[in-house]
Amino acid sequence: MVAPVRVIPNAAKRASSLLRTIQYTHPPSCPCHSNPGYHKTPPSIVPRVREAGRRRYATPTSMNQELKEYAFEMAASSIRFGPGVTQEVGMDLRNLGAKRVAVVTDATVDKLDAMRQVREGLAREGISFKVFSNVRVEPKDSSIKEAIDWVRPYQPDAFLAVGGGSVMDTAKLMNLYMNYPEADLLDFVNAPIGKGRPIDKPLSPLIAVPTTAGTGSETTGTAIFDLVSKRAKSGVAHRNLKPTLGICDPLNTRTMPAAVKASSGLDVLCHSLESWTAIPYYERAPRPPNPIMRPAYQGANPISDVFSFHALRRTVKYLPRAVKDPDDFEAQSEMLLAATLAGVGFGNAGVHLCHGQNPGYKHAGYDVPAPLIPHGVSVAVSAPAVFRFTAASNPRRHLEAAEAFGVDISNVKEESAGEVLAEALSKFLADLGDQPAGLKDLGFGSDHVDALVEGTIPQARVLVLAPGLDTELQTEKEQLRRLFEDAMTH
Amino acid sequence: MVAPVRVIPNAAKRASSLLRTIQYTHPPSCPCHSNPGYHKTPPSIVPRVREAGRRRYATPTSMNQELKEYAFEMAASSIRFGPGVTQEVGMDLRNLGAKRVAVVTDATVDKLDAMRQVREGLAREGISFKVFSNVRVEPKDSSIKEAIDWVRPYQPDAFLAVGGGSVMDTAKLMNLYMNYPEADLLDFVNAPIGKGRPIDKPLSPLIAVPTTAGTGSETTGTAIFDLVSKRAKSGVAHRNLKPTLGICDPLNTRTMPAAVKASSGLDVLCHSLESWTAIPYYERAPRPPNPIMRPAYQGANPISDVFSFHALRRTVKYLPRAVKDPDDFEAQSEMLLAATLAGVGFGNAGVHLCHGQNPGYKHAGYDVPAPLIPHGVSVAVSAPAVFRFTAASNPRRHLEAAEAFGVDISNVKEESAGEVLAEALSKFLADLGDQPAGLKDLGFGSDHVDALVEGTIPQARVLVLAPGLDTELQTEKEQLRRLFEDAMTH
Repeated sequence: MVAPVRVIPNAAKRASSLLRTIQYTHPPSCPCHSNPGYHKTPPSIVPRVREAGRRRYATPTSMNQELKEYAFEMAASSIRFGPGVTQEVGMDLRNLGAKRVAVVTDATVDKLDAMRQVREGLAREGISFKVFSNVRVEPKDSSIKEAIDWVRPYQPDAFLAVGGGSVMDTAKLMNLYMNYPEADLLDFVNAPIGKGRPIDKPLSPLIAVPTTAGTGSETTGTAIFDLVSKRAKSGVAHRNLKPTLGICDPLNTRTMPAAVKASSGLDVLCHSLESWTAIPYYERAPRPPNPIMRPAYQGANPISDVFSFHALRRTVKYLPRAVKDPDDFEAQSEMLLAATLAGVGFGNAGVHLCHGQNPGYKHAGYDVPAPLIPHGVSVAVSAPAVFRFTAASNPRRHLEAAEAFGVDISNVKEESAGEVLAEALSKFLADLGDQPAGLKDLGFGSDHVDALVEGTIPQARVLVLAPGLDTELQTEKEQLRRLFEDAMTH
Repeated sequence: MVAPVRVIPNAAKRASSLLRTIQYTHPPSCPCHSNPGYHKTPPSIVPRVREAGRRRYATPTSMNQELKEYAFEMAASSIRFGPGVTQEVGMDLRNLGAKRVAVVTDATVDKLDAMRQVREGLAREGISFKVFSNVRVEPKDSSIKEAIDWVRPYQPDAFLAVGGGSVMDTAKLMNLYMNYPEADLLDFVNAPIGKGRPIDKPLSPLIAVPTTAGTGSETTGTAIFDLVSKRAKSGVAHRNLKPTLGICDPLNTRTMPAAVKASSGLDVLCHSLESWTAIPYYERAPRPPNPIMRPAYQGANPISDVFSFHALRRTVKYLPRAVKDPDDFEAQSEMLLAATLAGVGFGNAGVHLCHGQNPGYKHAGYDVPAPLIPHGVSVAVSAPAVFRFTAASNPRRHLEAAEAFGVDISNVKEESAGEVLAEALSKFLADLGDQPAGLKDLGFGSDHVDALVEGTIPQARVLVLAPGLDTELQTEKEQLRRLFEDAMTH
């Protein structure tokens, strides 16, 4: 593939080069037509197309595979932020005209103050509601199906999710499948695992109230779960899945135990680092023939960059304080904001290898240990190895990330970018405390590498955004094998 | 008023102090109740409330005037950006289910390539549409009424605005008043000029295609026009007014003449500088009793700051190039992006004195010259004087802005912040070329100061966000008088 260039400083250069490409390479002023295949790309630029898309994306027959992407789209939920703002949620639902609300939570959150306020707020507005509190942490297809079966007969006119990423993602899927009563679970799941059907109509209003500072799910169109039948983590990703409003109340995250603060904060760290280093959107192929098929995970772009890098710097600054001092409300509050901002970043750019590899998930039929590793810990444990691998594709961007960790990069050569960022990350994880120093600490060894590789390959949605990863399957597997070996200790 | 503090670095400190205030000052954990006036603020904190709100905001009887704001809300239209992306708009409207579209434009834009693509795109999708091309540049109440009268009988199911800020703002108002067929124009206009009624339901889908890089109206919930009957510039501002999608196509801004590039770019510059220096949201009062009444112009907040400052830096870098070289597509493209990002920033934080004073508007009955000064020129001409005035309220933020202009601030004292930023701005305007060096160059003199002051006072929506402006009317008028004297030459 073409080596990605820095996105922020060169955004205009790219736009300019695209302008020239569009104006002068192709006779008509724009090659993106509703009539797919109308323009044939000149053979000379075909080899520049990132071919991964052909293998990894859903490829409906109408898709014009020969053109790379030329545009990006930024979509985010509205976000309201403030201590105590949970109290407004009843009014919001009344303002939306809701009369019958499905409140989605889990058994733990159901007992917390956030849920007390939700019940009081809804009662005060005279809004009828039912609570579904059976959300499973790290949801599976079976738990998602249970939730859908619960909501389809209830037919609420709005949803309210109160909890962490598992709760918010489950609520999104309940909303989706209630609005498509005939759909099978796999219809909307990302290809190639599912059918990758686009969500072609607006769903019911969904308000999300996060109680952890981690997934940023309150602002994204992504819902992730374990598809046990397919032995893979997958999900649905589409802009129309995003909540109407995220209500971020730092009073709601005070109750997280320190370990949850650390793990969810590491998820924020990886969201921001991965979206910052993802391939640029214009290297993605194929160009969608209809804007509704433009993926939410579209690669780094000039707007996601602003969010991702800002969230990275705030996380580096505030996560250690948030983990160490449960009374540091300033740091807790900043981490909730960073989680949401990183959510806007990765929700529009995507994540890649930290989230693609997934040692936390016990693949049925594979002999891998430790199914209960928290998501954030599992994504961060191989981060030093991941960025050591990806740095060659875009050294300057990796150096800027190292700088965000406080490294003086003024005398660092570009070829050392991966090493320097990996070291900064290892030190950050070590200083945070109680973090595994590699896959080995989680009980993995060389025997598990093949299983880890096989578990990663189906993650098409994220692997397609990994810079430096080869598009030929065997080479890619070899690269991943080396990456996992490297990730054993850091 | 309490001197505003830096927003980004101290966001957490504020949150933390708010947390403590909420948790420990008021016995219940949150003072924001749907039962207005339920909690009486302890007298000790009453003097800290920014009283301007009492005079300037709409104050429905239910409003709890004693509490300051404690939350902020971030809302922005989805934005799609790419050269040639105008071609997708027909598909977008089909995806939205539109069958009958009102296309809003002006006579000039109607002849441009953007409109050709729009017509072709809609025809290709078999969507019925009518074009309203009578939008007036710098719309007045009469031109807005004409547009509303045109659209009410047509009853489109979606809107498509193709043009600059005047076109997009007119389309927003057509959408609003078509959806409230019984409403009078003043019902939704900002108080105190209009009745400030909130938009309490979703409007029809509106897609905005900007053809200038300036207003950022494609992402905001703001629509501005001259209310000739009230001798004031005013408008409607509410989140529900914002477009569904902004389609930013740098191919569409190539046709701007250099003077329009300069003027619209100066609008971007002032949007970013004003929202960056606006009072922080938590200094605004009263706290709205219902979230639907939280203004879009809510003061600087940690998310708007990210957009505003980023847009400022890009504008400083690219506007001079965009103005000087019509073939510099890179700079044109960056300015379109900067306009949109600044739109997200000021659309959620607000603008203040540059946009509050308005020498470009000829107040009927006042003897002020030059009604045809382009909006961007008129907002920028007094910018050096404005920031010289506001700097005392938040010197660090003004110094950071000066740094964005390339000034070495390492040895600048805080008391010089206003002078340094004013100088940087004057130099920037002079280097841009063909800019008036103060109000005098526009034909204003000391004789006009009273009229300028009287024309500014009704701009409640923006004056309430001006840092350092007194809340007592006579003192405020005296401050504005000095500001306009200072703005005569820079």
